[in-house]
Amino acid sequence: MGMVGGGRDAFIGAVHRLAACMDGHVAVVAGALASTPEKSLASGRDLGLDPSRVYPDWQTMLAAECKLPREQRIDFVSIVTPNFMHFPIAKAFAEAGIHVVCDKPMVLTSAQAKELCAITAAQKVVFGVTYNYSGYPMVKQARDLVRSGELGDIRRVVVEYHQGWLATPLESSGQKQAGWRTDPARSGAGAIGDIGSHAEQLASYITGLELDSICADLSTFLPGRRVDDDAAVMMRFAPRNGVAARGMLIASQIQAGCENDLTIRIGGSKGTLTWSQEDPNFLVLRSDGQPERIFRRGNPYLGNLAKASARVPSGHPEGFIEAFANVYNSIAAAIRAGAGGPQAATEFDFPGVIDGARGVHFIERAIASSQSQNKWTEARFTA
Amino acid sequence: MGMVGGGRDAFIGAVHRLAACMDGHVAVVAGALASTPEKSLASGRDLGLDPSRVYPDWQTMLAAECKLPREQRIDFVSIVTPNFMHFPIAKAFAEAGIHVVCDKPMVLTSAQAKELCAITAAQKVVFGVTYNYSGYPMVKQARDLVRSGELGDIRRVVVEYHQGWLATPLESSGQKQAGWRTDPARSGAGAIGDIGSHAEQLASYITGLELDSICADLSTFLPGRRVDDDAAVMMRFAPRNGVAARGMLIASQIQAGCENDLTIRIGGSKGTLTWSQEDPNFLVLRSDGQPERIFRRGNPYLGNLAKASARVPSGHPEGFIEAFANVYNSIAAAIRAGAGGPQAATEFDFPGVIDGARGVHFIERAIASSQSQNKWTEARFTA
Amino acid sequence: MGMVGGGRDAFIGAVHRLAACMDGHVAVVAGALASTPEKSLASGRDLGLDPSRVYPDWQTMLAAECKLPREQRIDFVSIVTPNFMHFPIAKAFAEAGIHVVCDKPMVLTSAQAKELCAITAAQKVVFGVTYNYSGYPMVKQARDLVRSGELGDIRRVVVEYHQGWLATPLESSGQKQAGWRTDPARSGAGAIGDIGSHAEQLASYITGLELDSICADLSTFLPGRRVDDDAAVMMRFAPRNGVAARGMLIASQIQAGCENDLTIRIGGSKGTLTWSQEDPNFLVLRSDGQPERIFRRGNPYLGNLAKASARVPSGHPEGFIEAFANVYNSIAAAIRAGAGGPQAATEFDFPGVIDGARGVHFIERAIASSQSQNKWTEARFTA
Amino acid sequence: MGMVGGGRDAFIGAVHRLAACMDGHVAVVAGALASTPEKSLASGRDLGLDPSRVYPDWQTMLAAECKLPREQRIDFVSIVTPNFMHFPIAKAFAEAGIHVVCDKPMVLTSAQAKELCAITAAQKVVFGVTYNYSGYPMVKQARDLVRSGELGDIRRVVVEYHQGWLATPLESSGQKQAGWRTDPARSGAGAIGDIGSHAEQLASYITGLELDSICADLSTFLPGRRVDDDAAVMMRFAPRNGVAARGMLIASQIQAGCENDLTIRIGGSKGTLTWSQEDPNFLVLRSDGQPERIFRRGNPYLGNLAKASARVPSGHPEGFIEAFANVYNSIAAAIRAGAGGPQAATEFDFPGVIDGARGVHFIERAIASSQSQNKWTEARFTA
Repeated sequence: MGMVGGGRDAFIGAVHRLAACMDGHVAVVAGALASTPEKSLASGRDLGLDPSRVYPDWQTMLAAECKLPREQRIDFVSIVTPNFMHFPIAKAFAEAGIHVVCDKPMVLTSAQAKELCAITAAQKVVFGVTYNYSGYPMVKQARDLVRSGELGDIRRVVVEYHQGWLATPLESSGQKQAGWRTDPARSGAGAIGDIGSHAEQLASYITGLELDSICADLSTFLPGRRVDDDAAVMMRFAPRNGVAARGMLIASQIQAGCENDLTIRIGGSKGTLTWSQEDPNFLVLRSDGQPERIFRRGNPYLGNLAKASARVPSGHPEGFIEAFANVYNSIAAAIRAGAGGPQAATEFDFPGVIDGARGVHFIERAIASSQSQNKWTEARFTA
Repeated sequence: MGMVGGGRDAFIGAVHRLAACMDGHVAVVAGALASTPEKSLASGRDLGLDPSRVYPDWQTMLAAECKLPREQRIDFVSIVTPNFMHFPIAKAFAEAGIHVVCDKPMVLTSAQAKELCAITAAQKVVFGVTYNYSGYPMVKQARDLVRSGELGDIRRVVVEYHQGWLATPLESSGQKQAGWRTDPARSGAGAIGDIGSHAEQLASYITGLELDSICADLSTFLPGRRVDDDAAVMMRFAPRNGVAARGMLIASQIQAGCENDLTIRIGGSKGTLTWSQEDPNFLVLRSDGQPERIFRRGNPYLGNLAKASARVPSGHPEGFIEAFANVYNSIAAAIRAGAGGPQAATEFDFPGVIDGARGVHFIERAIASSQSQNKWTEARFTA
Repeated sequence: MGMVGGGRDAFIGAVHRLAACMDGHVAVVAGALASTPEKSLASGRDLGLDPSRVYPDWQTMLAAECKLPREQRIDFVSIVTPNFMHFPIAKAFAEAGIHVVCDKPMVLTSAQAKELCAITAAQKVVFGVTYNYSGYPMVKQARDLVRSGELGDIRRVVVEYHQGWLATPLESSGQKQAGWRTDPARSGAGAIGDIGSHAEQLASYITGLELDSICADLSTFLPGRRVDDDAAVMMRFAPRNGVAARGMLIASQIQAGCENDLTIRIGGSKGTLTWSQEDPNFLVLRSDGQPERIFRRGNPYLGNLAKASARVPSGHPEGFIEAFANVYNSIAAAIRAGAGGPQAATEFDFPGVIDGARGVHFIERAIASSQSQNKWTEARFTA
Repeated sequence: MGMVGGGRDAFIGAVHRLAACMDGHVAVVAGALASTPEKSLASGRDLGLDPSRVYPDWQTMLAAECKLPREQRIDFVSIVTPNFMHFPIAKAFAEAGIHVVCDKPMVLTSAQAKELCAITAAQKVVFGVTYNYSGYPMVKQARDLVRSGELGDIRRVVVEYHQGWLATPLESSGQKQAGWRTDPARSGAGAIGDIGSHAEQLASYITGLELDSICADLSTFLPGRRVDDDAAVMMRFAPRNGVAARGMLIASQIQAGCENDLTIRIGGSKGTLTWSQEDPNFLVLRSDGQPERIFRRGNPYLGNLAKASARVPSGHPEGFIEAFANVYNSIAAAIRAGAGGPQAATEFDFPGVIDGARGVHFIERAIASSQSQNKWTEARFTA
């Protein structure tokens, strides 16, 4: 693969490389790794890339790679830049017929998202969005339990994502991550975009429910901060089997001491599930009339997706990188199989361009609701 | 004490008696225990009460007890009837100068609540409301940590109360509890009143924050049910130190498999607290720059309220009944000390008539918000 | 009931009273509460006992109570003195036909234990020993799961009891508890007797296995301390279904920071159970081929003993005092039913004189093993 | 690196490769991957190795690699064969000056171990033993807390390793792992060797204590099984600061439902630590007079070793493979730095040849104790 972004000082680029390469299916062979040519070249050296494939910028990279014979060219590009750069890069590579992996939130506007959906369909490329939390085996098991009816009708969804890293005005310290993530021009939104989008996708992946309307309350706690740093969203889902589930989403980055505390609870007419990212090898199911059951990663009693996404036996914990790698592995499998277009995501069980578009739409609608005096706002998404 | 309600087949009356009598400070000596004279008398026999003080109804009880010399008369009445009966009984006893313990929600309307506040002040009686969850030692410790500034400014409050006992139409089965609790005439409200009021009081007790406005979404999932059985409420608190905390409250009784899953999380600028009722001997504090700390009941490092409300040494778990007993013990201490009026609650650390009134006001405003198309609704409470 | 010991400054006496009286089946009506007449009388006043039944010593108490008409006399005596006093008091009351509740370890020698067994049989009294941990509902459930074959053949038992209260030379500070418990003349033994006996009984109660031989390593970590303060015992059980389980017991009081950390794990050919006293409402069962199951107190799916020993619904935690109360309740039920003799314990599910004798025997054999250079030592117990 | 063993159907070889290559410091370039030439070649193809460096057996591999110029030759060999093959292979490669990574237990006898120690010293090779559990960051933190005196004097160590995979006669089913691990000729020992050695090393790594004597009880539960499948060992450590700690080790593979349940508890005069492998990102410290503290992976408050061995920020769990990778990374760092000899292990914080030798000695002494009627047996180890 080739990588755009993720050079020296970047946080998430290194995680992407670890994840992509973990199982030996993918290797980084080219890159435009930073926002200046010098830094890009230096970063390429750090990674031991062939200097001829370390490019000063993504445009050069695209042009040069396209000139290479197909079997030498990168199979896909992984875009790990600040959010505002996702769209032009993804568009250009996809239009050139190169598969794309893009970090979340996918783009800044629904219009951009629709355009990417259309290009993905037209070019029949594989387009993945690294919503990495749905790569956890026990999240896949949760989805499986919902589908198999273990919960009955879903009634209440609560997904919470609590962090503390922006509890202080970190952006004033020159910290790079905090800098662009709190700059609306580069990030598009604050907590609702950065982690709210993860929460939305996690709920959507597990339940398959579609939003009907939402009522959002976005706040900014740190004086002078230019994006929201705390968000609460009440949700109403479209009915399924005549039951319209209610939901609640919290995405907050200003609670000191919280690390990466993402938890989801799904209550239904027959049972209630909970999963917590900080302890990801376990999935708790409470049902009436029987003991609480804890599904544990790596066991034969799990569903196929959960089983296929585990590497080591039960009792040997897997973590964040492994879950992230599962996303890359599914994308790589789709590419190897010659799949393409938006529907490849469903077939190969990875978050795709439509999931990315739905996430962007969610962020937009949450902001719209919050800006309109927190009214209930229509939030139906059509691919 | 004397008891109104709590006869045969009642659930909570027996718990009140266990709690009230646990530490030997209180004994049940009189009662009008059921809605019919026959059942009341039979229930009195079950409890081994002196038959001359088992009354056919509360009016007879009040009249007869008032005729007894002061030292033989009951010191206080405990009202554990369905909600709609709380008001007339509490009013009559308080006006007669008899101290009152009343289950929650205290009454059905704010007008009734104000009247009880006034009577409590005028008669200088002790008036307690059995919000039992604030009797847990580690809840008291949480309050103490907030007051001592361990969390810094409070920014986000999340309080969730998930139950499953009304996941099926239990009221159709003739189950008595489900019957009156889902009958609006007798209960006043559904989940928002029955357990939402507990959640509101827990948050208020620990944080001391005052509500400014709320936006509520009340739902009824079971077809034909006449009260809400699931509620979500977004909250904005009045500023403290210039910081206006945001909150979220969930009260839901229709998630199968959930038992009595009440959890509160309070995030601040310096640290974040969590406490869970189903594992009540522990209190978790995460702060930046240091290991997570778990405060454990019964230890010398705890604050005075937490220490004073524990019976057995650390490592010997206490539970629900002990917490409930702590509420009764504080009320009994106030009575023994000759205290009275609304402010006795603050002095002796028990939920009082003002807390009861605040709870009723919260329920009213939540219903108002939900009925007005879930708009943000002013929710300031003035005692 | 009458009480011997448990006056001012005593720790466990107050817990016994809380437990005995919790459910209203028992009241304290008489006592010889301390080692001096003055202190005994003062303690009686503290408890509000009728002064005519507060006795200067247990001998006077026994004589006076025996003179009362049967219906006024105490039904049973509860002995909560230091260990060395258990034997003469229990013997005298039992010989007088008064039922006995005795703290653990029951007596100092097997010879004394045998004598009490014989008297219990001859006098047909009810004799209970307050091994309170087997009063926990989930311990009863564990026993039930073993009996119903959920674990298959038991192979390995690990029971650990870690405390820290004797991590420092507390006995030098004048602390009363530490004083007598580290004095061999008054306690008989150290950690192996004080908490090792609890661990032994817990394992025996749940598994029903009988010891064959043991190999013990008793240590004294605090310089100058006159009893063991840390004990490890390897155990071999007599075969059941041809399978001779192995066991391990640890009883240690010198690990700073530990509170009352008693845990048992029982591994079998079909499943493995764990229960922890500091979180007693849950019981964990891991079995091959299915999710871990957590049995939770108060649920309809539990066995009869677990169900009958719960007071409040699931999700409302019960604790140490409730478990202790369950022991008293079973004893009181036996007395009310007119039962008697050693076998009443089995019938009414409480720890009886034979369990007490087995505990004393275990302590003796552990000390014998440790003193004989930690050799494997025969440890079969015959009632 | 080159690999001996780990071909098709092997379990641990794949984990070694994942771990070794995770961070991009190591690549597999050569191998003799199976016990037959055909299978070795096929396995090499599976891995995409250059066919010219896939060898039919380790002898051929050694000879061929030695003929390559130093810069093309493998830097080190990783030996992941059944135990009985470790010695000849490790010896041969080390004698040829090729660095060695060897699975545990290192060899079958102390004589072999001593020989490897001597060769390591003479050849100045880096020799690592993949005791992977000491690669967990929070295990390193535990070691750090012990060294910094947070526990005071260590008094009691309890290390338990419970598995269930041999709860049935799996070796009769043809399962390859079970086959060689229960064959004394190929494994050397059963549970005491396979997982007891991990437990011993974990305790040794964290505490730094040296054994003085042990008393072991090894059992075989499955009829016809030729090795122990359950082991308990009481331990006495050599005094440190005048305090001779006591220990207990359990290694059991026949408890149905257990997965990979390795837990260590270390109690001292000032505090008590617990760590559990199945939840490895947390480390619990209980100390007198303050709340329980939970150290969480990835935080700035951790010691240097714990910090250096984490990849992703706090709240993003790491697992088994990452811990395993940490062992490889340290070994690779030593090789890159030109280090060598037994002491390189200490310098670069990886388990080395002396740790391997100590483990073999422990297994030997445990078997000796068990065979001599479970007597206490001298167990001092001298490098």
